[in-house]
Amino acid sequence: MNTAVGFIGLGRMGLPMAQYLLDADFSLSVFNRTPSRADVLLQRGARWATSPRALAEQCDIVVSMITDDAALRTIALGQQGILAGLKQNGIHVDMSTVSPDVTQELVPLYQERETHFIASPVFGRPEAAAAAKLWICPAGPTAIVDRCRPLFDAMGQGVIVVGEEAHLANVLKLVGNFFVIAAIETLGEAFTLAEKGGLKNETVLDLIQALLPVPLFQGYGSRIAKHEYTPAGFALALGLKDVGLMQKLAKDVVAPLPLADLAGNHLRAAFARGRGDLDWGALATVIREMAGLPSGVEEPQ
Amino acid sequence: MNTAVGFIGLGRMGLPMAQYLLDADFSLSVFNRTPSRADVLLQRGARWATSPRALAEQCDIVVSMITDDAALRTIALGQQGILAGLKQNGIHVDMSTVSPDVTQELVPLYQERETHFIASPVFGRPEAAAAAKLWICPAGPTAIVDRCRPLFDAMGQGVIVVGEEAHLANVLKLVGNFFVIAAIETLGEAFTLAEKGGLKNETVLDLIQALLPVPLFQGYGSRIAKHEYTPAGFALALGLKDVGLMQKLAKDVVAPLPLADLAGNHLRAAFARGRGDLDWGALATVIREMAGLPSGVEEPQ
Amino acid sequence: MNTAVGFIGLGRMGLPMAQYLLDADFSLSVFNRTPSRADVLLQRGARWATSPRALAEQCDIVVSMITDDAALRTIALGQQGILAGLKQNGIHVDMSTVSPDVTQELVPLYQERETHFIASPVFGRPEAAAAAKLWICPAGPTAIVDRCRPLFDAMGQGVIVVGEEAHLANVLKLVGNFFVIAAIETLGEAFTLAEKGGLKNETVLDLIQALLPVPLFQGYGSRIAKHEYTPAGFALALGLKDVGLMQKLAKDVVAPLPLADLAGNHLRAAFARGRGDLDWGALATVIREMAGLPSGVEEPQ
Amino acid sequence: MNTAVGFIGLGRMGLPMAQYLLDADFSLSVFNRTPSRADVLLQRGARWATSPRALAEQCDIVVSMITDDAALRTIALGQQGILAGLKQNGIHVDMSTVSPDVTQELVPLYQERETHFIASPVFGRPEAAAAAKLWICPAGPTAIVDRCRPLFDAMGQGVIVVGEEAHLANVLKLVGNFFVIAAIETLGEAFTLAEKGGLKNETVLDLIQALLPVPLFQGYGSRIAKHEYTPAGFALALGLKDVGLMQKLAKDVVAPLPLADLAGNHLRAAFARGRGDLDWGALATVIREMAGLPSGVEEPQ
Repeated sequence: MNTAVGFIGLGRMGLPMAQYLLDADFSLSVFNRTPSRADVLLQRGARWATSPRALAEQCDIVVSMITDDAALRTIALGQQGILAGLKQNGIHVDMSTVSPDVTQELVPLYQERETHFIASPVFGRPEAAAAAKLWICPAGPTAIVDRCRPLFDAMGQGVIVVGEEAHLANVLKLVGNFFVIAAIETLGEAFTLAEKGGLKNETVLDLIQALLPVPLFQGYGSRIAKHEYTPAGFALALGLKDVGLMQKLAKDVVAPLPLADLAGNHLRAAFARGRGDLDWGALATVIREMAGLPSGVEEPQ
Repeated sequence: MNTAVGFIGLGRMGLPMAQYLLDADFSLSVFNRTPSRADVLLQRGARWATSPRALAEQCDIVVSMITDDAALRTIALGQQGILAGLKQNGIHVDMSTVSPDVTQELVPLYQERETHFIASPVFGRPEAAAAAKLWICPAGPTAIVDRCRPLFDAMGQGVIVVGEEAHLANVLKLVGNFFVIAAIETLGEAFTLAEKGGLKNETVLDLIQALLPVPLFQGYGSRIAKHEYTPAGFALALGLKDVGLMQKLAKDVVAPLPLADLAGNHLRAAFARGRGDLDWGALATVIREMAGLPSGVEEPQ
Repeated sequence: MNTAVGFIGLGRMGLPMAQYLLDADFSLSVFNRTPSRADVLLQRGARWATSPRALAEQCDIVVSMITDDAALRTIALGQQGILAGLKQNGIHVDMSTVSPDVTQELVPLYQERETHFIASPVFGRPEAAAAAKLWICPAGPTAIVDRCRPLFDAMGQGVIVVGEEAHLANVLKLVGNFFVIAAIETLGEAFTLAEKGGLKNETVLDLIQALLPVPLFQGYGSRIAKHEYTPAGFALALGLKDVGLMQKLAKDVVAPLPLADLAGNHLRAAFARGRGDLDWGALATVIREMAGLPSGVEEPQ
Repeated sequence: MNTAVGFIGLGRMGLPMAQYLLDADFSLSVFNRTPSRADVLLQRGARWATSPRALAEQCDIVVSMITDDAALRTIALGQQGILAGLKQNGIHVDMSTVSPDVTQELVPLYQERETHFIASPVFGRPEAAAAAKLWICPAGPTAIVDRCRPLFDAMGQGVIVVGEEAHLANVLKLVGNFFVIAAIETLGEAFTLAEKGGLKNETVLDLIQALLPVPLFQGYGSRIAKHEYTPAGFALALGLKDVGLMQKLAKDVVAPLPLADLAGNHLRAAFARGRGDLDWGALATVIREMAGLPSGVEEPQ
């Protein structure tokens, strides 16, 4: 395909996503804060750009996969930012987990310059990215989303179009992450109750296999049953930040989200005890301790 | 098969279960508080017994599927109870949702008379019972559980053996119901947040289809999205009682179960507003009202 | 005064209460499970009774101050109980913290025998009992409450008449204890937030002195600030039971009581970690741990 | 006294505070967004300043009493701000309820210019301000706080010195407001439980008189008992914002504050139902509705 695509953010999610774009024969330029992460792509024919702006100047569509609102503002705005380089009708599609706020802030800035900013966050952990099994959730004007479709098809297993307003995709991402943290809280309480009630972990896993045979419950169920929180698929400290975004959204739209408050307090307690680098499934350690059980993890020193 | 089987409790769950026992050629006797419910079984060759005791006198294994602890005590104990009629080595297997307490109370009474009481609650709503798709979770001495297996195979899609102590099956049932009420709470909060955040219900259902493609989330998700709480697959008033059993278990084994507290308060609020006869998915109506949205259901008069 | 008064339950609350009845020149008979507790009263002229029944036979009014519903049933009912001994028109006034349920159960049994059962729980810790500073909250038929007034005046600093139905006094007692546990939860969270925010405990105590200059907040505030939970004015394990009574009341009357759920989970966690014998102010230890602070108390072995 | 004092923010709190400064013979200059609010002061000899800067140029100490962080930044910074006008060694003492963040941001800016910014929030509703019964809680370098003492003595009934770091006073203010919202939540749950349990409101007020005889509990108790939420001493919408500040502090210092989460959700529900202009005691309306009781207030339109 001869669409010129740029990719910024070659982390554990971004790198495999970019590789699938190469596999699909897109002409790929890349930029990353740590340049060495790009080597494997450059060897396969991708071009290096010296800044987001430089990247944007040579691309029709720029994809970003970065860590937070601040990082997105940094690569989008300013003299060396994407917006400064993007050609008329160019698209910046951000696939990160950021707040609806930053998207609402960027959309009109891009419009003023006759370019487009859309949001298209993804569901799936790094393993899913590595297997092109992501779920991709774009929102933005239909024509712009359609221009990005071939990229989405290359990187994911399915697309959920959220709507015409870009920030709605960020809302959906937060709703999705709420399902994840709710599942972790549920599992943490269930396994603790079961253990104190005399059940074996295997029996609870059998129950999950019967009632909830999906990776979300099976995966976190297995981690919690085995107290296996390293390597962190998603670090607890990041999870805490994500819950903060959900809570802010709930506040802004005036909706209750007490389950996020509950899980957030457990994550915060785990963080306060130095477990921020573990997988966020380690929320369960706090529930165990509240039941008088050992946390299941080594304490820092 | 020539095992003589008795069945007590021909409600929406019990009746189809008993029919599958007939299908499997068990010799079946039945008893029910409302005799007319038995007609369809009697026409197919089942025998009517005039009391739980009379039933037990002619059976090797008596199955019960009743509403609560009190009902179980009534059919098990007393002059006309199962225990009074059961032959040496006879088995009473209760498949209802009752508390671990009542099981722990009954087991030694049966042992004293050289008979057996085991618990084997099931997962699945009436539709699952009607399709022999129940998950069946027995606990008790292995030899006794094994004698009941052919019955379980006739009524369910799978068996999870919980352990040697009968009351552990009741613990597992409560853990399982906790997963259900946790899912309802999660969905209620998620749909409300999504709606106030500007998303369409269809988009959230798509997300569930991607992340949580299991009947538990799809079914309650669809009910909540459509505000469809009648007919009640499981009535909110009963759900409130079930949450009470979970909370009592948590208290007895000294484990926290804050998510059950949270969901319990929402169920209680729905009940206080006269919604006890709706499906317990109607928990979501309370969350909607806390967000300033219409409940989605007609108010009583 | 020549009313013949009986007193059952000479614990840390009951003993000083009985002494004030002697001070007020009531003719006093006493019964206690551990007879030696009565010595100091017998030396001052009180008479020993060999059973609740024997006590009741010689008294116009029997006061009880016992530990829980079961103890109340034991002394009230049965062949050696108060009800068996009480003369026509005799009064049993229970001043303990028991459930509205047991009162509702006893009232008609006493009525059948033309005697009276009223409830009159008290507010105040043992120090208040020792100083005749209790608040006394009777409920029952006005004429019966009036007959008990001279006793109340001898033991307390004030009387709050609750109503004509005896069990309402138990409801009020639970509402009062809810204020106490709510204050402990509030203080536990406030001191933890303050400490992590950089404030000195003394400053928070100054703030309490300004905003909430009452023994409830000052006393628990001081205990929490100093981590002083022994001797237990009111043991955490008992507090946990009390919260259970509140939660049951809330469930029975269909009202939400989420703050009791919250505090109850913290008490439960403290209990699970072996802190049941500490004062229930030790709820705060759990909140400290959730903030990553040391609990402030020695761990059991 | 010949200290030249400036006052900015003549709202329901600020106006009576400024009047007491006049009473104490301070030389007073004032500035307010709505100039007419100053008339009563000007008639008594205060001078009008045309901007915060102009005010600061003629004063030793500038007091501000404004609505939020943004308002504080506006009057402090910028070309027409206090900082631009303040003489060397001049003091700006902010007495508003603002976040610790904004104080930490301002302190070094003032230091750079050899001036001083300290925080000194107050406790007390407008009635307390009108009676010089405020509690005043300054934090900052001792010498600077001491220079402000005569002003504090003129406006309040007592001073609690919080520490040497100015932002700690803001932390204390949030801790204090946490005590208030916790009291409101407690009262809302208690009155609802009591009503559904059959008690009269008067009895609960008697109980408060006995256990918690302080204006905080008596005042909100009376408001809740009578459903009297207008005029709003402190508007629910502002209370919601205050709880947000507490929650942010708790998050920043990594401490749990679940009672604020709980109360915050109730405030949010009341706000979502259009009750933002009522006194924040109207939190209780939501608890009543969760118990199936009428809210006690008229619904909008």
